[in-house]
Amino acid sequence: MTSPLALGLAEWSRALRWDALPADLQERVRLWVLDAVGLVLAGSTIPAGRSILEVVRHQGGRPEATVVGLGERAPAAWAAFAHGSFAHGLDFDDTFPGSIVHPGSLVVPTALAVAEAVGADGAALGASVAAGYEVAARLGAAAGRRFHARGFQATGVVGPLVTAAVAAKLYGLSARTTAEAMGLAGSMGGGLLEFLSDGSWAKRMHPGWAAHGGVVAAQLAPAGFPGPLTVIEGRYGLYAAFLGAGAADLARLADGLGGVWRAREAHAKLYPCAHVIHPFLDATRETYARHGPGAPDVEAVVCDVEPWQIPIVCEPREEKVTPRSEYQARASLPYCVAALLVDGRVDMQTFTPEAIGRPDVLALAARVVHREAAAARTGASPPPEPGGSPPEPGGFATAVEITLRDGRRLRGSVSAERVAGPEAVRAKFARTAGRRLPADRAAALAAAVAGLPATSAAELLARCTKPTTPAPRDRPSPRPDRAPGS
Amino acid sequence: MTSPLALGLAEWSRALRWDALPADLQERVRLWVLDAVGLVLAGSTIPAGRSILEVVRHQGGRPEATVVGLGERAPAAWAAFAHGSFAHGLDFDDTFPGSIVHPGSLVVPTALAVAEAVGADGAALGASVAAGYEVAARLGAAAGRRFHARGFQATGVVGPLVTAAVAAKLYGLSARTTAEAMGLAGSMGGGLLEFLSDGSWAKRMHPGWAAHGGVVAAQLAPAGFPGPLTVIEGRYGLYAAFLGAGAADLARLADGLGGVWRAREAHAKLYPCAHVIHPFLDATRETYARHGPGAPDVEAVVCDVEPWQIPIVCEPREEKVTPRSEYQARASLPYCVAALLVDGRVDMQTFTPEAIGRPDVLALAARVVHREAAAARTGASPPPEPGGSPPEPGGFATAVEITLRDGRRLRGSVSAERVAGPEAVRAKFARTAGRRLPADRAAALAAAVAGLPATSAAELLARCTKPTTPAPRDRPSPRPDRAPGS
Repeated sequence: MTSPLALGLAEWSRALRWDALPADLQERVRLWVLDAVGLVLAGSTIPAGRSILEVVRHQGGRPEATVVGLGERAPAAWAAFAHGSFAHGLDFDDTFPGSIVHPGSLVVPTALAVAEAVGADGAALGASVAAGYEVAARLGAAAGRRFHARGFQATGVVGPLVTAAVAAKLYGLSARTTAEAMGLAGSMGGGLLEFLSDGSWAKRMHPGWAAHGGVVAAQLAPAGFPGPLTVIEGRYGLYAAFLGAGAADLARLADGLGGVWRAREAHAKLYPCAHVIHPFLDATRETYARHGPGAPDVEAVVCDVEPWQIPIVCEPREEKVTPRSEYQARASLPYCVAALLVDGRVDMQTFTPEAIGRPDVLALAARVVHREAAAARTGASPPPEPGGSPPEPGGFATAVEITLRDGRRLRGSVSAERVAGPEAVRAKFARTAGRRLPADRAAALAAAVAGLPATSAAELLARCTKPTTPAPRDRPSPRPDRAPGS
Repeated sequence: MTSPLALGLAEWSRALRWDALPADLQERVRLWVLDAVGLVLAGSTIPAGRSILEVVRHQGGRPEATVVGLGERAPAAWAAFAHGSFAHGLDFDDTFPGSIVHPGSLVVPTALAVAEAVGADGAALGASVAAGYEVAARLGAAAGRRFHARGFQATGVVGPLVTAAVAAKLYGLSARTTAEAMGLAGSMGGGLLEFLSDGSWAKRMHPGWAAHGGVVAAQLAPAGFPGPLTVIEGRYGLYAAFLGAGAADLARLADGLGGVWRAREAHAKLYPCAHVIHPFLDATRETYARHGPGAPDVEAVVCDVEPWQIPIVCEPREEKVTPRSEYQARASLPYCVAALLVDGRVDMQTFTPEAIGRPDVLALAARVVHREAAAARTGASPPPEPGGSPPEPGGFATAVEITLRDGRRLRGSVSAERVAGPEAVRAKFARTAGRRLPADRAAALAAAVAGLPATSAAELLARCTKPTTPAPRDRPSPRPDRAPGS
C-alpha cells in the first residue's frame, strides 16, 4: 500500500465507485444502511436519544442535514453526532467481532449527513458506505481486541479516522487532503470503558462523538489545516499511543486492499445487548429449545467466557446480577441469559425498567455464573463467509452448561455467533423502525433503501421524517437509577 | 476528598467564590485572562486561526458567544473551540511544567464562552477561571509527564474534564451533574503527538477540541445523559486507560484541595515555542549576554536535554535543523537557540516563513547539538513560589555550553525557567493583542481585564471585537510546506 498508510487508504477510498462493487457488496451496503437507519429511528425515541436531541437542537446552525426527531435540519457535524449516538444507543448495531468496532453507527450516520449536505446521489452514498466499512474493518483488524484490553472502546478510538474518510470522500477531497483530515481525526479519538462501572451512558455517544469529529476534521483539512499523514504508523500515531509501540499488526490493515473485502466480516446484531453475549444466547437458546423443559426447572447455568470478555459482561458481579439500569442490563451476561431462559427471547422489551426488575429473572440471573474459557478454544473462528474474506481469529465462540433441578446437565456450544442473514435484518428493521414509524411507512422506507443507488440520502431521510411525526418534547429526561456515590 | 474523585473536584469547584480567593490568586486570574485573551487575538490572525474561523463560520448556529474574527456570535461550544485553538496556535500559552498541561487555552476560552452565553458577571467568570486552573493543575499533577511519554499531548487528554468543570460551574450544575459531565468528557480526551513528525497542525486544535467537548459534555449531562462518576480513579478511567493501571499518583490530585493552590504553578511563556525549550533560551541568553562576542563567533552549542524532551524538540534531527514549517521551527531546540544567538531575541517574528529560511540561522542550527542530561539533574526543582504551593519535581532545568571560534567555552545553566512576572505578561499582551488591535484599544482592554471582577465576559469580548476589525476573508489558507509523502 502507498505510504503513509493513511494516504493509501485515502487513495483507495477516494477512487471507489458504486458500479465497481461486487454485487454481493452492493447488497450488503443496502442491508448495512437498512439496519443502521432502523436503529437511528429506534434510538431517537429512547431517553438517551431525547437528551442528544436537546443538545443538538440547542446549537442551531446551518440547515444541512436531516436529524430524525429534530423537526429541522442541522449542520452535518451535528446530524452525524445525533444519528451516530442514536444508532448505538440500544446496543443493537453491527460489529466486527475481531476488533469489536461498530461500523454501522460510524459510517452510515456520517455518510447520510454529508451526502445530504452536498446533494450527493445514491451511488455516491453507497460507495462512501462501502469505503467506510472497509476502512473501519482494516483499522480495527490491525488492533485486534487490544483497545478494549487497554480500557478504550475501539469504536471511539478508530472512529474519527473512519468518519473522516467517509466525509472526505463525499466532500470530494483529494487523497492527500483526506489523509490530512484522518491525521487530525487521530487526535479526536477516545472513549473510555469506564461506563461499565455504573451503567452510565458515555458509550452511547462514542460513535456519535467520533462521527462529529470526523466531519469536522474533513472540514478543517480543506480549509488549510492539516494533520499528520503518518497518523496510523507513526512513532506517536494512533496505535503507538493507544496500544504501545509494535502492538498493532499493520500488515493486516493493508493486506489485499481492493481485492479482499474485510467489510464482509461485519455481523448484524440480532439481540440488543453487548455483542460478546450473543453466542451465549445462541448456545443457550439452542440447548434449551432442544432439551429444556422450561426455565423454572433451570437450577444453574455455567458460561465459558474468554478472559478479555469477563470485565465487560461478568464484572462487577453484583451489578451484573442485579442491574440497576437498562444499560447495565445490556452489558450483563447473567441477566441476558436469564431473560432468555424465562422469556424465550431477548429483544428491545428485555431492557425496559419494568423488565429488568422482575424477581424471577433476577433470581435466575444470580444462578448464571461464568468460568474462564479454556485457552485451547480461543483460536476458534467464525465460519468463512462467501467472497474470500479471511477468517477472523478468535471469533465469538462459546459453550454453556445448563443444570436442571432434576440433576440433568445440558451442554451446548456454538463455534461462532449465528450470522444474521438478509431476512433476519429486514425483520429486525421492521421492529426498530416501527419504534418511530407506522408499518406502512417503515415498509416504504425499506423499499427505498433496497432501491439504492436510485435513492439519495435526502430522499431516504425524508422518508424517516415526513409526514412529520411529532418531535419528542424537550423535557428533563429520566436519569438511570444509580446508588448515590456509586 | 469526597469519593468519587470527580465528585470531590466538582463539589469544590462549584462552591468556589471570587470573594473567597486569596488576593494573589485574584491577581493571577487577571494575568491568566490577560495572557490568554492576547493570545486569542493574535491566534485569530494567523493562517491556522483563519482555517478554524472558516469551519466555525460554516456551522452557524445560536448566537451565544462572541468569536474574535467571526463578525457574529456562535454557539458557546464553537466559540470555545475557536478561542482554544487560537490561544494555543502560536505555542505561546502558559504551562504547568510538571505535567505540560496548558491551562490558559482550555480554561479561559471556555469560561469566556459560557459566561457570555449565560450572562454571568465578572466575579463568576473569575471564579470559574480560578477553579479551572486548579482542576487542570491537579489532573495534570496526578499524571506528571507520563501522557507525553505515551504519545499523547496531556492537554488533549485531561482538557475535556477541565473544560467540563469550568462550563458546568458557569451553567450552575449540581456537583453530581458536574461530575457526570466530567465522566462524559473523559471519553472525549485524545490528542496525539504525531504532529511532531511533519509539523502539521493537529496540536493547534487540541485545546480547542477539548474545550468544545467539555462544553458539550456540560450540556449533555443536565439533559439527562450521564457519564461515569469514577472517570478519574476507575478501573477503566482516564489514567488507567491512557497510562496503565497504577501509573497515576491520585494522591497528588486530591491533596490539600482548597488549602493549597497548585494553580500557582502555571508559568506564562515569554517565548512562542515549545515550553521545554525555554530554559535553554534563558541559559543561552544569559551566557551569551554575559560573555559572548556575537553570534558569528559561535562555533557550536551543546544542550543538556532530559531524555523525555528529546523526541519533542531534538528529533528527528534533520527536521529540527532545517524546519520546513513554522510549526516545526517552534518545536526545534536547534532552530530556537540559533535564532536567539543571531537575533538576540525569540519572538513571534522568529517563526515567519522568511525567518525560518535564513541561511545564517540554519547554518548555526546545524551546530546546535544535544546530549542526554545527567540523571543527577532530573530532580531539579523550580524555585518555590509564594503561597505555599509545593515544588514541582523535575522542573525545566538545563545547562548549555557555547564554544566560540577562538576556542573559548562558555557554560551556563538555569535551575528552572525564568518565571514571568506581571510586568512581563503585560508587555507580552501588548505585543499579542497588537496583532489585531490598535495600541489604544489593546490598552483599554488590558485595563478592563485588570478591573475584574467589575467586567463581564461579554464586555471583555466586546472590547476584542468592536468597533469591528474587518474579519479575515474566507479563502484557501496557505499550506505548510512539506515534502510530498513526508
